Amino acid sequence: MPRTDLSGNMLIAQSGGPTAVINQSLVGAILEAKRRKQITKIYGALHGIKGILDENLVDLGRESKATLEAVAKTPSSALGSVRKKPTTDDCRKIFSVLKKYNVRYFFYIGGNDSAETTHIINEEARKADYELRCFHICKTIDNDLRRNDHTPGFASGAKFVAQAFMGDNLDNRALAGVKINVVMGRHAGFLTAASALARVYPDDGPHLIYLPERPFAMSRFLADVKRVYAKHGRCVVAVSEGISDKNGTPIASLFTKEVDAHGNVQLSGTGALGDLLASQVREKTKISRVRSDTFGYLQRSFPGVVSEVDSREARAVGREAVKFATGGHSSGSVAIQRKRAKNYRVEYIRVPLSSVAKETRHMPASHINKAGNDVTSAFVEYVRPLVGPLPRIGRLKAYQVKKKK
Amino acid sequence: MPRTDLSGNMLIAQSGGPTAVINQSLVGAILEAKRRKQITKIYGALHGIKGILDENLVDLGRESKATLEAVAKTPSSALGSVRKKPTTDDCRKIFSVLKKYNVRYFFYIGGNDSAETTHIINEEARKADYELRCFHICKTIDNDLRRNDHTPGFASGAKFVAQAFMGDNLDNRALAGVKINVVMGRHAGFLTAASALARVYPDDGPHLIYLPERPFAMSRFLADVKRVYAKHGRCVVAVSEGISDKNGTPIASLFTKEVDAHGNVQLSGTGALGDLLASQVREKTKISRVRSDTFGYLQRSFPGVVSEVDSREARAVGREAVKFATGGHSSGSVAIQRKRAKNYRVEYIRVPLSSVAKETRHMPASHINKAGNDVTSAFVEYVRPLVGPLPRIGRLKAYQVKKKK
Repeated sequence: MPRTDLSGNMLIAQSGGPTAVINQSLVGAILEAKRRKQITKIYGALHGIKGILDENLVDLGRESKATLEAVAKTPSSALGSVRKKPTTDDCRKIFSVLKKYNVRYFFYIGGNDSAETTHIINEEARKADYELRCFHICKTIDNDLRRNDHTPGFASGAKFVAQAFMGDNLDNRALAGVKINVVMGRHAGFLTAASALARVYPDDGPHLIYLPERPFAMSRFLADVKRVYAKHGRCVVAVSEGISDKNGTPIASLFTKEVDAHGNVQLSGTGALGDLLASQVREKTKISRVRSDTFGYLQRSFPGVVSEVDSREARAVGREAVKFATGGHSSGSVAIQRKRAKNYRVEYIRVPLSSVAKETRHMPASHINKAGNDVTSAFVEYVRPLVGPLPRIGRLKAYQVKKKK
Repeated sequence: MPRTDLSGNMLIAQSGGPTAVINQSLVGAILEAKRRKQITKIYGALHGIKGILDENLVDLGRESKATLEAVAKTPSSALGSVRKKPTTDDCRKIFSVLKKYNVRYFFYIGGNDSAETTHIINEEARKADYELRCFHICKTIDNDLRRNDHTPGFASGAKFVAQAFMGDNLDNRALAGVKINVVMGRHAGFLTAASALARVYPDDGPHLIYLPERPFAMSRFLADVKRVYAKHGRCVVAVSEGISDKNGTPIASLFTKEVDAHGNVQLSGTGALGDLLASQVREKTKISRVRSDTFGYLQRSFPGVVSEVDSREARAVGREAVKFATGGHSSGSVAIQRKRAKNYRVEYIRVPLSSVAKETRHMPASHINKAGNDVTSAFVEYVRPLVGPLPRIGRLKAYQVKKKK
C-alpha cells in the first residue's frame, strides 16, 4: 500500500466531449484537495494534456469559493477540453512537466479515451519510478463506461433528450406527420433510449427507437414507420447517430468522411443522417409531411436542463477521486455503482484504470425490445431515478361534441 | 357599436406553428368565457378550421379547472393545429357550421396567416348578415406580427435560443472550432437575434449573427468567420433559416423544393442550410473543426424553458379577446403594445384584423448593426425584459501559472 503522506502538487484537467455537470467534478476535486494537507498547489491544465504539454497551467487554489460554486453549476469544461491522443513522445514530455512542477496527484476527467490516456501516463510514471497518484474521473453523456452503472453527464443529457421529445411529441400531435430526431450516441444507445421518458399518454411518441446495439435495416425501418403512421396518423422516431447496418457500417458514415484524432467518423454537427432517413420515408411511403432534427451539441451542454442526481454524483466522483488518491491509493478510476435497494442509492468505488479504458459498454439486451425498435420497461426503471422529475404534461379530456344533423 | 347582449355559443381553435405558451391563450379565453353569461357552450375545433369544416368539435366548457391549468402550462396547441388556407368554398362551409351550432363568438389563435383567415371569415359573416364576433389571438415565435411590440410564443422561443447559445458557446470554448447554429425565422430575424442574450463575457459567442433582413453574401460571411477565428481562435455563428441573397432568394431554397399549403419553401426540419455553410467554411478557409446544428422544432415547443412574461401575456391576450368580444366589439386582433416607461409594462389593444393579416413585420433597422452581421444594444434592451432571467454562467479567474525554466 503506498503511503498516505506523499506530498506535492496536484494537477487536474478535463478531456473529451463536455457535459452539463463536468465542472461539478472539477470543483468537487478542488474543494476536497483544499482540505488535504498533502496537496500544496492545485494546478489546472488548459485543454487537457495539451495544456500540460504546453505548460499552460492555471492556479486553481487561488479561485474563490464563490467562483468555484458558480463554475460548478455551469455546463461545459471550464478548463477547456481536448481530443488529442498522446504519443509515447507526448507521455515522456508530460512527465518532464509533471516532475518540473512537482506534481504528485494527477486527475483526468473524461470518458474511456481519457481513462486510456490516464492509464498510459500511469504506466509511464511507474516505468520512470516516479511516484504519482493517477486518477481518472468518469464523465460521458454516452453512458458507455465499463464498470459503471451510469456516468456523470448522462442523466442531464438524458433529461434534455426526454424534454425535447416531450415537446416534439406535442408538436407532432398538433401538426401530424413523421418526425425523426437524431440523438448522440456512437456505439451506445442510452441517450437515444432516454427519449422513452417523454411518454406520458399511451399514444405519445417516440413511437420507435433505433439504437446502435441493433443492426439497422432501412426496409424494416420504413415498414415500422408505415405501421405506426397507419395506427396513430403520425410517428415520432428516435434514432442514435451511430446506427449501423448488419455489417457494422454506420448509416451516417456513407455521407461523411471527416474523422477526429481518435479515428472516429464525425457523426454530430451535421444533419446528414436525419435528412437521409427523412428523404427515404418521403420517397418510399406516401406520407407527405416528414421532418428531421438532429439534436447535436445542444444535448450535452444545455444550461438550465440539468438532473439534480447527476449534479450531486458528478460532484461526488471528483471528491472521491481526491479521497482515494490522498488515502494512499496509487491509481484508479472512480466508478458509480447502484445499490440493490428499494430506493435509489449509489456507492463510489475505485476500479483499475485499464478496466474502463479503451472498450465501451453497450446497452444490455434486457433494455432493448425483441424487434429492436424500442426499449423495455427495465430500461425505463433504470433511467428514471437518474433523470428525476420532468415537466408535467397536461392534456384536454376533449369531450367530443355530437355532430348536429 | 354592436350590442353587448349577443348571446350564443363560442368556438375557439388554434392554427399555425405551435408555441410553448399557445395553450395559455386558449385557457385564458376559456376561463374568461366561463365568466360571461352571453356565452353558452364553449366549443373547441380540432386542428383549426379543418375541425370546423369536419364538425370535429369538443366541449371545452366541460374541462375541469385543474385540467385547464395543466394544459395552459403544456407546450404546443392542445386542440391541434393546421396549415390549411380556406378557399371561398371552405368559408361558405364554415358559416353553415357556425350557424348550425349557433356560434356567435369565434376566436382563432395564430399568426398572420391565421389573422387573414379570421379576416376572411369575418368578411363572409358580414356579407351573410350573420352577427358573429370574430377575433384573432396573436401568437408566433417569429415575432413578426404587425401592430405588436412582440407576440406570445416569441419570448419562450428566444429563451430557448439564448440558453442553447449559452451552452454552445461554452462547448465551443472548450473544444475550439467554428460552430454554426441555424435558428427559425423565415422573414424576421428576431429569434436568431435573441442569441445575443447568450453573451455574458466579452469574448462570448455568438460572434456573428446573420438575419433575413439583410442580404447574405457568402464571401463576406467567410471573411467574417476568418476574422473572428483569427481573433478568438474560435467562432460561434447564429444564422436565420431564412437568410437570402441580394435578389431575395433564400440560401436554403437552393437545396430543397418542398413547399407548404401557403406556398412557403420548407426551411425547418432539415439540416441542409447548416451543412452547406459548414462545408463552405471547411473548403474556403483553413479551419478544420467546423460543425453546424439546426435547432429545428425544439425551439418552439420545449417544456421547461418558458419565459414567465411570455406565459402571463399569452394568458392575457386570450382573456382580453373574450373581453373585447363580449364587450360589444365585433372583430379585431388583440395586440401587445409596450408602454414607454422605466419598468417593463404592456397594454393590450384591439386592432383591425386586416392590420395584422398577410404582411409580416421585420426587425427595425435600429436593431441591426451597420455591417449586417450582428444586433445592436437597442435590440438587447428590447428583448431582455421579455425573456427574463437566464442561467448564471460562471467562469474561472484562471490565474496563469508562470512557466518554470
